[in-house]
Amino acid sequence: MQVTPNRRLAAEALGTGLLVAAVVGSGIMAARLAGGNGAVALLCNAIPTGAMLYVLISILGPVSGAHFNPVVTLVFWRRGEIASALAGAYVLAQVAGGALGTLVAHAMFGLPIVELSQTARTGLAQWIAEGVATFGLLLTILGLVRANPSAIPSAVGLYITAAYWFTASTSFANPAVTMARALTDTFAGIAPADVPAFIVAQVAGALLGGVLSAWLFGGSGTHLPADDA
Amino acid sequence: MQVTPNRRLAAEALGTGLLVAAVVGSGIMAARLAGGNGAVALLCNAIPTGAMLYVLISILGPVSGAHFNPVVTLVFWRRGEIASALAGAYVLAQVAGGALGTLVAHAMFGLPIVELSQTARTGLAQWIAEGVATFGLLLTILGLVRANPSAIPSAVGLYITAAYWFTASTSFANPAVTMARALTDTFAGIAPADVPAFIVAQVAGALLGGVLSAWLFGGSGTHLPADDA
Amino acid sequence: MQVTPNRRLAAEALGTGLLVAAVVGSGIMAARLAGGNGAVALLCNAIPTGAMLYVLISILGPVSGAHFNPVVTLVFWRRGEIASALAGAYVLAQVAGGALGTLVAHAMFGLPIVELSQTARTGLAQWIAEGVATFGLLLTILGLVRANPSAIPSAVGLYITAAYWFTASTSFANPAVTMARALTDTFAGIAPADVPAFIVAQVAGALLGGVLSAWLFGGSGTHLPADDA
Amino acid sequence: MQVTPNRRLAAEALGTGLLVAAVVGSGIMAARLAGGNGAVALLCNAIPTGAMLYVLISILGPVSGAHFNPVVTLVFWRRGEIASALAGAYVLAQVAGGALGTLVAHAMFGLPIVELSQTARTGLAQWIAEGVATFGLLLTILGLVRANPSAIPSAVGLYITAAYWFTASTSFANPAVTMARALTDTFAGIAPADVPAFIVAQVAGALLGGVLSAWLFGGSGTHLPADDA
Repeated sequence: MQVTPNRRLAAEALGTGLLVAAVVGSGIMAARLAGGNGAVALLCNAIPTGAMLYVLISILGPVSGAHFNPVVTLVFWRRGEIASALAGAYVLAQVAGGALGTLVAHAMFGLPIVELSQTARTGLAQWIAEGVATFGLLLTILGLVRANPSAIPSAVGLYITAAYWFTASTSFANPAVTMARALTDTFAGIAPADVPAFIVAQVAGALLGGVLSAWLFGGSGTHLPADDA
Repeated sequence: MQVTPNRRLAAEALGTGLLVAAVVGSGIMAARLAGGNGAVALLCNAIPTGAMLYVLISILGPVSGAHFNPVVTLVFWRRGEIASALAGAYVLAQVAGGALGTLVAHAMFGLPIVELSQTARTGLAQWIAEGVATFGLLLTILGLVRANPSAIPSAVGLYITAAYWFTASTSFANPAVTMARALTDTFAGIAPADVPAFIVAQVAGALLGGVLSAWLFGGSGTHLPADDA
Repeated sequence: MQVTPNRRLAAEALGTGLLVAAVVGSGIMAARLAGGNGAVALLCNAIPTGAMLYVLISILGPVSGAHFNPVVTLVFWRRGEIASALAGAYVLAQVAGGALGTLVAHAMFGLPIVELSQTARTGLAQWIAEGVATFGLLLTILGLVRANPSAIPSAVGLYITAAYWFTASTSFANPAVTMARALTDTFAGIAPADVPAFIVAQVAGALLGGVLSAWLFGGSGTHLPADDA
Repeated sequence: MQVTPNRRLAAEALGTGLLVAAVVGSGIMAARLAGGNGAVALLCNAIPTGAMLYVLISILGPVSGAHFNPVVTLVFWRRGEIASALAGAYVLAQVAGGALGTLVAHAMFGLPIVELSQTARTGLAQWIAEGVATFGLLLTILGLVRANPSAIPSAVGLYITAAYWFTASTSFANPAVTMARALTDTFAGIAPADVPAFIVAQVAGALLGGVLSAWLFGGSGTHLPADDA
């Protein structure tokens, strides 16, 4: 089935929104119930996030490619697999959809619709972690996009489940999600002042992942479903 | 293999019953063992539910389509994919099977066969959560029913595992299961007086999910295995 | 590749042994580390068991059909899918392999090689639970053996992961495993005196599952890989 | 696509490095957050490790075969499926990559880049456990490499998730990873003096697994993607 640009952009906004709703919402529920055990809380945040990524990439991949992430769009744009205008629109849809996801999570949990996070997430170690997290995410996507695209939903879902734990930052790895998480003063939040450095680290990690993947996995070509004629 | 209506209805009753037995039974076991840690209890309720959905949809999908849920039947009926009489019978089978599932769970745990729940689950935030949960469930099913039906068991199982956490209501998302959960005064229960509003929210979320999916994913046509001639 | 009877029997003994080693071993580790939280202990027993079932059925299914369970062999024998002599040898291999699995688990954890369990598991509710657990297991296997055999490893693994929680008995569902678990006085044990009633319930549940599956899913025919000529 | 030796060796180093980063990093995070509950800590170490193995084998398998483990390379070399010179280079790449993985984990968590572990892991029971763990790992790989190679990522990921629990040693099962874990004084560490005996047990278990698999599963032949001409 051919896909119109409107449907693609709706898919990017919806997917990023539901992803953020899952991250923020499960963080709220997990922190409320975990009785102060941080590992239990993070586990009950990580498992839903990974599960939801599997679902969202499975259903929306055939519509928009399921980027849900500006640095993923950036790397595909550098590979010549998405046109500049569409790439820019993707990023806007992701950022807007992500912010909406936080609002929906707050509405479901009876919280003020918008807050600003007061959770400091900063320092060299955190930035290295975000770089590594995003590097690994791009490696995962680009390692499969030609060779085995049907494995992308499970691989990305499980990669992020793992990266919650092994990167010290819990793996934001996504500028749109990072911005949306600045709008909640709950478990998953990040202070707005700490967002720019996270995004710099994410872009750096993504570009490095893109370069290494091009050498390691080779190849290129369009990964998007056909446009409407 | 062609399938008779009796086999279809048995599959819907059996599947909904085993799903409810898994939800209610794992809730009882989890709450008994969790030592008061609510997140551990909910995790040990969510993982078995998602796992059981994978199993039940895998084995019964080829028989009945594995709706197990009146609002799923409703949306397929609106799409013209199931005849009115069969759809009505599906809903009766789901409700009856679900109630039986609660009884079986109680028998396994040595509890009175029927109780009425005293757990209040009400208020705008809970209803929004049920609407979002059911909206997402329909999006998951309808996003895959044409493009990738073999992924439905894992996607629905993981969607519900996630939705336990990110929707504030723990994602009932199913009128037959909601009614069955009113019959148990254990971890998974819901006070009978709170059931109608949950069902209204579920129907609203499902219809919205159906409309959006029709635009986003397009297409229609029958998803049921062939009738006996 | 054709398979000799010796290779089949070795696969049944090895598979049942590794399954029991996983059940008993993870139970010991989980109970030692869980700090008295029974739900955490059971979760850390259930996840390894389900994971190991996925692995063992995947690798040994092409050799022996991966029964690892006398009541599974019984039901396939009643369907005419395994000859009487081979079926009897399968059951012996499963029982011997299972006992060996307990010994290996004890050796790994530095415990006396054989003990007798003192954990009482008895009463009507437990027997109903074992019946339901085994009924569901057979439904899972027979629902897929014709329609979708490649889904059996994940479905059985996830079914048992769920059944640990929703059946009050934690779902032994296997006479060979039940006997082997009588030989350990650790988390997964069962007092020898309670074994016979468990096995009666398992056989009853399996036969009921076999009968219902024959009607619901239809069909029959051999599921074993070809014999050597 | 044909693969150069350089790309293969990079894949082995990168894969082993990211695997170790996941093992060590998630161990640090889990231990910091688990509030002293050892089972919660180990679960939050085991799930990321298994998930990461799924990802790394999926993306790097088509490049290098995704050994990431000297004893896996050893067994494939004995089967004549990898040339001696390349096998030696694989082992060097695995050991170097693994050590680098520990450094990256330390950098992400703001720890001194290199430490020596003080965690004693020794004694007959531990060595038996490592032998069993590695035996089972080889059985898993060799049981699928001909019959069903696309199941290797999920089977190895789930095998190790299970083996964390049912082997008393938490299943190192890999000499390169064992050496790398000697370089961290955190949750996943092993005292350098205890490394040699672990490796001896791992080699023994791997060889036994190789011999049994050759009989049980039969066959041989190259599993590596084609070399560049």
